[in-house]
Amino acid sequence: MAEDMFEQFREHSVAEFFKKNRQMLGFSGKVRSLTMIVHEFTTNALDACEEAGILPEILVEVEELDRNKDHYRMTIKDNGPGIPKSHLGKALGQMLAGTKFHRYLQQRGQQGIGAAACTMFSYVTTGQSTKAVTCHKGKRIVADIAIDFKKNKPVITVLEENSAEETGLTVTAEFKDVRYERSNYGVYEYLKRTALANPHCSITLVEPDNEQTTFPRSVEKNPNRPYEIQPHPLGLTPHDLLEFAKHSRENKRLSSFLQNTFARVSAAKVNELRELTPKLNFNKRPDKLTWDEAERLVKAFSQVKWIAPAMDSLVPIGKERVEASFTNIFNPEVLMVTERKPKVYRGGIPFMVEVGIAYGGGVSAAQKRGEVMRFANKVPLLFDAGGCAITETIKTMDWKRYNIRNFEEEPIAVLINLVSVHVPYTSAGKQAISHEEDVMLEIKNSVMEASRGIQRYISSKKKAHEIATKKKVIGRYVHQLSSDLASLADADAERIEKKLNKLIEERYVRRKEEGDSTENN
Amino acid sequence: MAEDMFEQFREHSVAEFFKKNRQMLGFSGKVRSLTMIVHEFTTNALDACEEAGILPEILVEVEELDRNKDHYRMTIKDNGPGIPKSHLGKALGQMLAGTKFHRYLQQRGQQGIGAAACTMFSYVTTGQSTKAVTCHKGKRIVADIAIDFKKNKPVITVLEENSAEETGLTVTAEFKDVRYERSNYGVYEYLKRTALANPHCSITLVEPDNEQTTFPRSVEKNPNRPYEIQPHPLGLTPHDLLEFAKHSRENKRLSSFLQNTFARVSAAKVNELRELTPKLNFNKRPDKLTWDEAERLVKAFSQVKWIAPAMDSLVPIGKERVEASFTNIFNPEVLMVTERKPKVYRGGIPFMVEVGIAYGGGVSAAQKRGEVMRFANKVPLLFDAGGCAITETIKTMDWKRYNIRNFEEEPIAVLINLVSVHVPYTSAGKQAISHEEDVMLEIKNSVMEASRGIQRYISSKKKAHEIATKKKVIGRYVHQLSSDLASLADADAERIEKKLNKLIEERYVRRKEEGDSTENN
Repeated sequence: MAEDMFEQFREHSVAEFFKKNRQMLGFSGKVRSLTMIVHEFTTNALDACEEAGILPEILVEVEELDRNKDHYRMTIKDNGPGIPKSHLGKALGQMLAGTKFHRYLQQRGQQGIGAAACTMFSYVTTGQSTKAVTCHKGKRIVADIAIDFKKNKPVITVLEENSAEETGLTVTAEFKDVRYERSNYGVYEYLKRTALANPHCSITLVEPDNEQTTFPRSVEKNPNRPYEIQPHPLGLTPHDLLEFAKHSRENKRLSSFLQNTFARVSAAKVNELRELTPKLNFNKRPDKLTWDEAERLVKAFSQVKWIAPAMDSLVPIGKERVEASFTNIFNPEVLMVTERKPKVYRGGIPFMVEVGIAYGGGVSAAQKRGEVMRFANKVPLLFDAGGCAITETIKTMDWKRYNIRNFEEEPIAVLINLVSVHVPYTSAGKQAISHEEDVMLEIKNSVMEASRGIQRYISSKKKAHEIATKKKVIGRYVHQLSSDLASLADADAERIEKKLNKLIEERYVRRKEEGDSTENN
Repeated sequence: MAEDMFEQFREHSVAEFFKKNRQMLGFSGKVRSLTMIVHEFTTNALDACEEAGILPEILVEVEELDRNKDHYRMTIKDNGPGIPKSHLGKALGQMLAGTKFHRYLQQRGQQGIGAAACTMFSYVTTGQSTKAVTCHKGKRIVADIAIDFKKNKPVITVLEENSAEETGLTVTAEFKDVRYERSNYGVYEYLKRTALANPHCSITLVEPDNEQTTFPRSVEKNPNRPYEIQPHPLGLTPHDLLEFAKHSRENKRLSSFLQNTFARVSAAKVNELRELTPKLNFNKRPDKLTWDEAERLVKAFSQVKWIAPAMDSLVPIGKERVEASFTNIFNPEVLMVTERKPKVYRGGIPFMVEVGIAYGGGVSAAQKRGEVMRFANKVPLLFDAGGCAITETIKTMDWKRYNIRNFEEEPIAVLINLVSVHVPYTSAGKQAISHEEDVMLEIKNSVMEASRGIQRYISSKKKAHEIATKKKVIGRYVHQLSSDLASLADADAERIEKKLNKLIEERYVRRKEEGDSTENN
């Protein structure tokens, strides 16, 4: 019996794993699957353009080949730097291969799975390979790309090679088991939100009925580039430290290794570390570091006062841009956008949360009651809201404290963008943020900060309403009172009424101002 | 610029991927991480015991080495068949390797990731390798196991080899960044629920304070063994068909390949397929099949009337066992358990949903209001409820139709167990079911079926209450009426009162019975 079991023992490639579990990559449901394809190629295009310093220009074309068979052809074209021939196959036909996985850099992609996942999905639903046209450094390559699933290796057939002046990548692939729809989970909504968070890019969508929509560029300059940082000492586990040490060839001594490999480690800091770990030899070769020594070093890291990770390594959407986008979409009565400093999670991975809250006005008209728009590194997250730390935080907020009686029913729209060099997604489909304590706390603090602004507005509106009501009530008696006073004092009723009215007017104006200034403190 | 980018191009192993994204394996949060470790080893132990026909006996020992450092030692011991030396390293130190991934068989594990993931987690938090003692076929091996992350290969050091009479596997490993707690998400609750769904197994837990709890075996026989089935034609995509065809060596002809490889394909069915695809040569070698031909065959599959996949390939917990467990835990006022036939999703993957609903009685006392207990292949799912198809279905139920005014606040506990040869999890952490349409529909139908029973109970209880009230009201007038009638008719008041009371009694008893029988139809 047990022998039979181990005759069944097999090794599998990551491509086979995700082929069988494509729902883990977000390929579940027809509409969602189509959106995921656009998501993967659009995020890659934006990352490549920004890294090469090119203003992004993206075309997404959805052709319906046979609606009854849920059969579509997708074309995604960008004006990025293109991909050299040497890397084309792996970039599109091998999972866990790419330029992003190992870098401490804010990027949309971070796994090296997405593009190959689309090639896989196309192949398993249609039997077709994926066609790529890449223009890179004067060369234009046309190629067909498939995946050898058993080995997780690309199968590439180069069809054409000639010269080109422009740059860019165009990917064309057929898919079945997908469907185009203009729903909240469809490509249109996805691109609209992408444009909202990325006003420097121009996106054109051609829908199956040939309707063409351009989400135009509204900012003629790429955002500041997030830059690659060195890992911060506070984010390191002993294991991380040993991994870096093991592969450190250029540093002969532990002291120089620490200074050259990690952020904020100066010679002075090394001296502090020396004092904290008197038995550790800082002249030893880094690849001779033991687990125990690494553990002592990590403990020492936590006892030293460090400068925080480089703040400008992270680039949020930005307050002005969020305000412009929100005003544009909702024209709300009131709008609050936070601008908070980056924080770290798991000790030293930098991240930043920006929150925009729009209330009233067009929010109500757009029927967006209790709307939450989630983003990670400026990428819209349309799916898996249920398991996401952002949704969870919104749910556990005590909205009544902010004069929001029932979040679901009030005209309130919340935008939350989490920016990080490594976004902790719950699954390879990258649609929900994992419940990291530090991240959740910062989301909560940011939402609370923005909510206080909304609360001030609502309560001053409420107070103004109360004052107006009181004024009206008192006003009702002024006329009668004036004439009674006039007959008692034998005075002019009209003059008394005027004086009383003036008194009321002044009094309530003053009180309203006092109320406002109290609210603002 | 673009050149720099591709200098950064790297290939990564699946071990490196999950090391960096351990939250995708469920390792996020200290309490959850500890539960995940127990989950991975317990499910493996149960699978191995059942496959080998051994009544499972599992010991879980949690030792707190240093609470301040969140440092624990975990030991999980089973009486299963053990692992041979040849496979020990890969079973515990290589991801995507194992006996389960490729089989059409209801099992708790299905990825070949879990055990190696624990070895990874132990190593990256403590620098320690994992210790295994395996007793298999008369041999006892003691070994240390680690992972070479770059290659996703095991590093095994055999420490002892001698003979043994017993069988079983004991794994011992240290972990940091975890915590033991007796919360709803802790090991105690996890094992309690495992025992609930697996009454044939005996589980002993030793907690850090040395308190020992045994969840005893209540059924002295393993459940019927689910058996491995051939894929059903309705579950095949053209790609699947081609993959099978490509690796079919023993079949020289397409016709015999179809009959030998897939379930329910008889010679008669092949003839039907022949008629539906007149241009296809059924004598051709299977490995010569083209995509187009495969597509035509899959289309023909959908036009033939097939016998459903083998029903007894799936083994649910079983109505009696769910009833016994629920009665034991809650002693509810009323209890409904469904027994429905298996269905298929994605065309041909067999699955089955069993639902138990307990209402009133001890449910209320246990403060389990609106409690949902999720299981997949009898494994408790404690986490990621938000993104799970089961939770989603419960949320969208129109409970008012079933006389449940507010699910969250009523004394109602729902157990849902999804059983399948391939459970569509949302992520490698296997804690939530993906939103597969067919699966969600069947969950809904099952919950509705069980709910109707609860509704009948609640409404008959309501009716009984109404009748009792009416009877009481009328009863108030009987005495007065009797004496009035007596004086009018000059009769005996006492006799009249007796008669009237008898009349009321009979009438309401009859109406109550009528009401009951109407409810039951």
